[in-house]
Amino acid sequence: MALSMEMMRICVIGAGPSGMSMLYHLAKMEEQGKRIPDVVCYEKQSDCGGLWNFDWRTGVDEHGEPIHCSMYRHLWTNLPKECFEFPDYTFDQHFGKAIPSFPTREVILDYLNGRWKTVNAKKFVRLNTIVKNVIHNPDKDNFTVWARDQDDEKDLPPEQFSHIVVATGHYSFPNMPYFKGVETFPGRVLHSHDFRDAREFTGKRLLVIGSRYSAEDISLQCVKFGATNVVCSSRSGPMGLKWPAEIQERPLLERIEGQTVYFKDGTSTEVDVVIYCTGYKHTFNFLADNLRLQTENTIYPPNLYKGIIWVKAGNKRLMYIGMQDQYYTMTMFDVQSFWACRVILGEMILPENATMETDIARWIQRLENVTSFADAVDFQTEYVMDLCRESGYQHNLDVKYLFTDLDRNRKESMITCRDNVFKSKFTGTVSNKHTKPFMDAFDDSYDAFVN
Amino acid sequence: MALSMEMMRICVIGAGPSGMSMLYHLAKMEEQGKRIPDVVCYEKQSDCGGLWNFDWRTGVDEHGEPIHCSMYRHLWTNLPKECFEFPDYTFDQHFGKAIPSFPTREVILDYLNGRWKTVNAKKFVRLNTIVKNVIHNPDKDNFTVWARDQDDEKDLPPEQFSHIVVATGHYSFPNMPYFKGVETFPGRVLHSHDFRDAREFTGKRLLVIGSRYSAEDISLQCVKFGATNVVCSSRSGPMGLKWPAEIQERPLLERIEGQTVYFKDGTSTEVDVVIYCTGYKHTFNFLADNLRLQTENTIYPPNLYKGIIWVKAGNKRLMYIGMQDQYYTMTMFDVQSFWACRVILGEMILPENATMETDIARWIQRLENVTSFADAVDFQTEYVMDLCRESGYQHNLDVKYLFTDLDRNRKESMITCRDNVFKSKFTGTVSNKHTKPFMDAFDDSYDAFVN
Repeated sequence: MALSMEMMRICVIGAGPSGMSMLYHLAKMEEQGKRIPDVVCYEKQSDCGGLWNFDWRTGVDEHGEPIHCSMYRHLWTNLPKECFEFPDYTFDQHFGKAIPSFPTREVILDYLNGRWKTVNAKKFVRLNTIVKNVIHNPDKDNFTVWARDQDDEKDLPPEQFSHIVVATGHYSFPNMPYFKGVETFPGRVLHSHDFRDAREFTGKRLLVIGSRYSAEDISLQCVKFGATNVVCSSRSGPMGLKWPAEIQERPLLERIEGQTVYFKDGTSTEVDVVIYCTGYKHTFNFLADNLRLQTENTIYPPNLYKGIIWVKAGNKRLMYIGMQDQYYTMTMFDVQSFWACRVILGEMILPENATMETDIARWIQRLENVTSFADAVDFQTEYVMDLCRESGYQHNLDVKYLFTDLDRNRKESMITCRDNVFKSKFTGTVSNKHTKPFMDAFDDSYDAFVN
Repeated sequence: MALSMEMMRICVIGAGPSGMSMLYHLAKMEEQGKRIPDVVCYEKQSDCGGLWNFDWRTGVDEHGEPIHCSMYRHLWTNLPKECFEFPDYTFDQHFGKAIPSFPTREVILDYLNGRWKTVNAKKFVRLNTIVKNVIHNPDKDNFTVWARDQDDEKDLPPEQFSHIVVATGHYSFPNMPYFKGVETFPGRVLHSHDFRDAREFTGKRLLVIGSRYSAEDISLQCVKFGATNVVCSSRSGPMGLKWPAEIQERPLLERIEGQTVYFKDGTSTEVDVVIYCTGYKHTFNFLADNLRLQTENTIYPPNLYKGIIWVKAGNKRLMYIGMQDQYYTMTMFDVQSFWACRVILGEMILPENATMETDIARWIQRLENVTSFADAVDFQTEYVMDLCRESGYQHNLDVKYLFTDLDRNRKESMITCRDNVFKSKFTGTVSNKHTKPFMDAFDDSYDAFVN
């Protein structure tokens, strides 16, 4: 049943890049003269930006709620900015000049804020407000949301919504498997979620468990900032990347005895610190069980039509943005959001359940053939372009060729891969070189990077 | 209105020393032939014992819930065991021989388990189950509890209870105030809640913020395990204790700039690590606002009649155990629990509201005169003895004289104060000396301590 504008109320949960893209498009549609429904976005942090905010705290916040931040100092993006540039708000437009291709955290957050400001997208956001519970009411076919104002330390009255958009990210709740004997390790054991600054590990011997982006980047950062050496252990075998001499790869950890770590191949070594770069869990403790996406980190999670619409309950008015494993990032969230907004406004009609199920099954079946970085980029390019076409998104977001260049650069050398320049698809601008190579650039401030 | 046994259902939240004392007394009463009501205890950890369990994890657990553990390796109690010995289950009875006065974590947990086993108190406990929400229903004058089975990852059906006993402790949610510039500090910033092993800090220069037990003990542990030096900063001025040469005291921290920390007196120093020993917050995110105890850490929290009965809502059937700042510990929880059990069973009748309010006010007014350790012990001794008398607890728990000895030992030297022996009030047994002085004893295992 189509809802009238009066019957619609949208609750967006989370004001990171995904949630803010929802708000951006709604605000933009409003600016363009469309009527939009009532919208509220609850954000537990004290500012918008999601993971792009830095928090010196780890563990829980002042209110006893899990810290969202997995961000650390000296982070440069691991994708060239040309891979996630917004076609309707380019880096040229924001900075007024060419800047390097691998920006630091503050620079990215500044860029995001710039785009949000163009339509005042933050006006819908209620900061320092945590969502505690969401249920679907089958009788009224709507949702009840319980939220809490953390400033006032008071529960808000429960509110009803026609639509829920879950945009809380999936890089905040550590996946931290047990290894035999880890409880006997005398040094620090941490997850990348709690990693804040590589300088904590200067002069230390590290064990890094994992083989994906966090493992790569944290290993490299630690060597850059003076770790004695890093042993990377992973289930999936060597990453096949060229590392500095201080980084060695080993098979999966088998057990720990005091400071000695043993690997599956029978070798062992002594380390001072164990860093789990074992990824994150999709955790939605604020959702009723029948609304919870349960998935591994995959480029096509189950039970989401077009990667967005929850098909199991809630009459297709529960949506998820940005829950995929990501190659495309900001631009993917953006076209997902645009697609979702058009569906909410009734400008696009969802097919029958059976058709949706078939569509999901078709995509998931194709996952079997995805075995390389290039395959995954191909898959996600197709997914993004499918959303572009369906929603009538005004721009072609395909930047597969940039990922190909990135892949080659990474294989040439992890040490130098961030020193390359890329050309913007939308402005033709070639980024300029950073004044220093990545491994020699120790200042990650906005000023050092942009000015 | 008195409830019949059939109308009663008791929900105990938390199976640490406080919650287990509730279950111990209920089980004991049952054994003695009394009829007891239906009881369930929800515990989020995988075993009973509360803070006496060690967890190698910090931050959040596998389910995204805050880690309860604030326990660290090599912890010896900071009270002689004679200060918290159960008269009905003495250390002699448990160990069959004299042991030293300041046991390590495993030894204490073993002792607690021994007592619980005598009446099979664990039979009421549902482990790996987290309480998500508790409300009071004014119409039925009962409580609804929503819990979640973390093993099955499923919400349990909401259940109704006549009584709620909150025994979740108050040393799990960090109080971590902001100091100017802390976000620029390049080293690790942690709260004592996340401190797991002093050996992480060997060779480091530490700033410890705080002046109470965590600050004392963590400073001492770190020096014991090779920290280069420790600067203790506190609002309340020097602790007035004799420290090893590696520990210096300074006034409150004023600001941080990179690795340099500045104090209120204008002095500064460079440090590698900042450890907040700034205490904990009473955090009850699972309770409705009108049921939440809101308090600083004090020996007489507001709105709790006899330190137990929540007088603000819930018709005096919401109880809190162990929410006081603690001198007496296990024995205080025990007499509180016994008192609460007798009230629940209708064997003791609560006075009118006005009388309860007056009683609370009288105790809180007397807090004004509590300015020293000795005053606080006096106050809490009186409180404990008041509960003993009222409830008809079978033993006299007054061990004020032991606290006096402890205070003297501490003032003589923090380094040696744990090397003293104490005499059990209940058995007359004098504890034996540990084979090594505290500062030279590096093995905290059960075997090293007991055998």
